[in-house]
Amino acid sequence: MSSPPIVELSREAIDELLHEQLVGRVGCHADGTTYVVPVIYAYDGEAFHVATVEGQKTRMMRHNPAVCFEVDAYEAGSWRSAIAQGEYEEVEGEEAEATIALLAERFGRGGTAGPARRRHRGEGASAVCFRIRIREVTGRSVDRSRPA
Amino acid sequence: MSSPPIVELSREAIDELLHEQLVGRVGCHADGTTYVVPVIYAYDGEAFHVATVEGQKTRMMRHNPAVCFEVDAYEAGSWRSAIAQGEYEEVEGEEAEATIALLAERFGRGGTAGPARRRHRGEGASAVCFRIRIREVTGRSVDRSRPA
Repeated sequence: MSSPPIVELSREAIDELLHEQLVGRVGCHADGTTYVVPVIYAYDGEAFHVATVEGQKTRMMRHNPAVCFEVDAYEAGSWRSAIAQGEYEEVEGEEAEATIALLAERFGRGGTAGPARRRHRGEGASAVCFRIRIREVTGRSVDRSRPA
Repeated sequence: MSSPPIVELSREAIDELLHEQLVGRVGCHADGTTYVVPVIYAYDGEAFHVATVEGQKTRMMRHNPAVCFEVDAYEAGSWRSAIAQGEYEEVEGEEAEATIALLAERFGRGGTAGPARRRHRGEGASAVCFRIRIREVTGRSVDRSRPA
């Protein structure tokens, strides 16, 4: 009769999810097109920090900086998700270096941040660092392992 | 010097990814808000089939049926992703039963489709079945385990 219980996550539980996961999805919209793209991120409690390259998502987020950021996790029949609304803010110079450092700290030397670091340091012209500052965030969990 | 190679996936490789994964993210946009939400889906080569409940995403997709559907996978330093543009189509009656059956076939009895099935059969008023018919889809992979 009953469905698996959907539970609203506390901000503490949302933060735990956002700190532990590595991959989020940016949702952006411009000129009638909605676009969702996965990114590797670092979270500092207020914003998601990303190093990427020029492309469709950066063009769209410059055009319309009101974006969504989604993170989810599935384990043994249960899932948690967090959905944030926020603002795209491109960063340059020292702030971009800080973004790279934050990602490097999280992913380690030679890890995921490595290529972005290399590109950022001038071997390619297309690196873009940005943050998505959280305006609001909600989270939910469902435990499907419980008897329904 | 070089970055990890970003490779455009063939439609065959995209289909492989879409068939093997269980969770995708719907991106929708209405009234100035972009929303990304994870869903469990079944893929038949032409559309993503989802059973869900009434909520923000169904309201938004009815308002603006031009949506994005994203799937990604991370394994041992490499990732693949597929991003589709498509149309939201709500289904009812026999088509909804077919959606439920497709999900049940994929996830098994008592699995994820169970609660939707129960809700669909009238014990709650809030079940919604829909498909997102693919208009276009692109895919990419990066192998970060290769020396950069």
